[in-house]
Amino acid sequence: MGIISLTTDFGLTDNFVGVLKAVILKINPSASIVDISHQVKPQDISGAAFLLNNSFSYFPKGTVHLVVVDPGVGSPRRKIIARTKDYYFVGPDNGVLTLALKSQLPLELIEITNQRYFLKPTAHTFHGRDIFAPVAARISKGERISKFGKRIKSLQGLDIPSVKIASRILLGEVIHIDHFGNLISNIDENLLNNFIQNNKFRIYIKGKAIGQISFSYSQGSSLRPVALINSFGYLEIAVNSGSACRYLKAGKGTKIKITRT
Amino acid sequence: MGIISLTTDFGLTDNFVGVLKAVILKINPSASIVDISHQVKPQDISGAAFLLNNSFSYFPKGTVHLVVVDPGVGSPRRKIIARTKDYYFVGPDNGVLTLALKSQLPLELIEITNQRYFLKPTAHTFHGRDIFAPVAARISKGERISKFGKRIKSLQGLDIPSVKIASRILLGEVIHIDHFGNLISNIDENLLNNFIQNNKFRIYIKGKAIGQISFSYSQGSSLRPVALINSFGYLEIAVNSGSACRYLKAGKGTKIKITRT
Amino acid sequence: MGIISLTTDFGLTDNFVGVLKAVILKINPSASIVDISHQVKPQDISGAAFLLNNSFSYFPKGTVHLVVVDPGVGSPRRKIIARTKDYYFVGPDNGVLTLALKSQLPLELIEITNQRYFLKPTAHTFHGRDIFAPVAARISKGERISKFGKRIKSLQGLDIPSVKIASRILLGEVIHIDHFGNLISNIDENLLNNFIQNNKFRIYIKGKAIGQISFSYSQGSSLRPVALINSFGYLEIAVNSGSACRYLKAGKGTKIKITRT
Repeated sequence: MGIISLTTDFGLTDNFVGVLKAVILKINPSASIVDISHQVKPQDISGAAFLLNNSFSYFPKGTVHLVVVDPGVGSPRRKIIARTKDYYFVGPDNGVLTLALKSQLPLELIEITNQRYFLKPTAHTFHGRDIFAPVAARISKGERISKFGKRIKSLQGLDIPSVKIASRILLGEVIHIDHFGNLISNIDENLLNNFIQNNKFRIYIKGKAIGQISFSYSQGSSLRPVALINSFGYLEIAVNSGSACRYLKAGKGTKIKITRT
Repeated sequence: MGIISLTTDFGLTDNFVGVLKAVILKINPSASIVDISHQVKPQDISGAAFLLNNSFSYFPKGTVHLVVVDPGVGSPRRKIIARTKDYYFVGPDNGVLTLALKSQLPLELIEITNQRYFLKPTAHTFHGRDIFAPVAARISKGERISKFGKRIKSLQGLDIPSVKIASRILLGEVIHIDHFGNLISNIDENLLNNFIQNNKFRIYIKGKAIGQISFSYSQGSSLRPVALINSFGYLEIAVNSGSACRYLKAGKGTKIKITRT
Repeated sequence: MGIISLTTDFGLTDNFVGVLKAVILKINPSASIVDISHQVKPQDISGAAFLLNNSFSYFPKGTVHLVVVDPGVGSPRRKIIARTKDYYFVGPDNGVLTLALKSQLPLELIEITNQRYFLKPTAHTFHGRDIFAPVAARISKGERISKFGKRIKSLQGLDIPSVKIASRILLGEVIHIDHFGNLISNIDENLLNNFIQNNKFRIYIKGKAIGQISFSYSQGSSLRPVALINSFGYLEIAVNSGSACRYLKAGKGTKIKITRT
């Protein structure tokens, strides 16, 4: 069979996604293709890296994760394949795979150079269609990744906002706003628990203070934001049946400060 | 094989839908998953109930209809499975399945309680991924629904705007605005025919009067709204090649009055 | 198996697309359905024709391309099937198939008249569901297209903006703006090369002049538009990691003038 996941910034208005899938099905007619998202903000590499990292491990073993957020298409940036314990990853070497490959280390890293597998003519502006999709489709059929190019040893890094911790203060920020207007931070559950331990604490965002971690959205009211550990393990600020984003007028980059007594 | 339909308010920007599908495919790799819509307005239970009710019967027998519009996720609201003559329905017991289960009565109703089938750890904020998807996937493989919990007898009701009928006046309202700006009412074909019979009638909306039921959009002009029975059996107000919503400045809740002579 | 591509103006908010797929799967449960786009602007026949023409040839041979952009639904406009060397096309005879069928000529043209294959009752407002989907599903299972109606000889034409060429001036226009804000023109690669040959040239759009064709977006800066031949063979104006549409305040219909010395 062969499952291929897709994460792109192509949007759903044009034919880009459909054509990608067509190319895959021409090579592997029994591939099962699952969209993670095509609504990554154009050229938002760290946004795509975050989405992929929160998604890949839910897929069946052997899934090929194809990511095409590729502002450098046509430039000398490398095109890569990674094999990990459970998955394959295919995409540009611009940081988009970096978070996932910290979560599950690569056992084999290949730079795609073998033009034999490219669609011809190969456009300089749509490697997703002409290079990445054909390669992903062939991997989903069982082709060994060493066929597609030469072994490499390291990956492009990714600058992501880091959490700062002083003695009694932890400083993070909003790194994603979801469809419901929930504010997802870069503060993960372990970090938070280690910082708070059994002390009292307060979470400050946009001048509001929250004194506890709730278990579910429904513990909050529509007039008071709640803090909770979301289903992917990150501290999230939400408003029950409302949008924390609108309620707090917060956005990507909004600071979150936690103090403990 | 096994077909699973999805109706959610997850939107298409995040990874929520992709992760739901990943969980399903991990359990049933040959499931065929069909999106009904992921653009239900956040927390709009009656909107989702309406969509599902207008969709479920077009699917092959045996389809598992999974609905996740779940503002009470993590609260004590029940999680249920219904088996009807032709289908299975899985979702929260908040009214979202109620219209469909009036159209096709449940032969068996189960409250999902058996944690053995849940993803672990089970998040309090994403039962779609951790409870509903694994259950739906197993049903699509032929698992009997009694395995997932205990039999129950009744369902949560759903408040939907009802049509009022006096001797010569029928009062309904717009309950859905579609992608084309067509205004779909809560007045169904039978109700309308019984009320009008062979009398002359007038349909009033936003001060405009329409004196006949058209057969197709193309019978209207772009400058005059038409009334027709839409393809799902409801009275609909439309503007040919235009948006009745914009033309009439109408919205969800706009009143529709019909008088007969 | 059987692959069916879908191009519609249904949007993704309603249940229209899901119901279309349900109808297909009821007839051919093993069909593989690929969305080209459902975000064609409502009733934009030439937009859909353009998308289809840029997409169809990437699909495996035997694919059934179903297009439902159908402002005349319910009127006497014909419903047609075309068989070409590699594909089948199904849709209304309103021009939506015309560009694709210039790229790959029809070997057989059928007007759909055989009501035996329609869903009953057949709505006047949703032929996609009640006529086109059942027909496409049956073709994907190998049914011969002559079964669905009578042979016809010609198709509805399509008015699309043509390129004007004088001795030293070529005049085209923007016919599509993609998700990234790139401006796609009606000037194709051959036309452009024939016009320019080895001469110096200048491309004018909204008062800006561009003196060369770039190979990739990354050759441009975010402050200067670039011209390139896009991956579908058309002259495109873009801004690297930005939106040419916003940068130039350009839209569908914006003129592009090319002069040569």
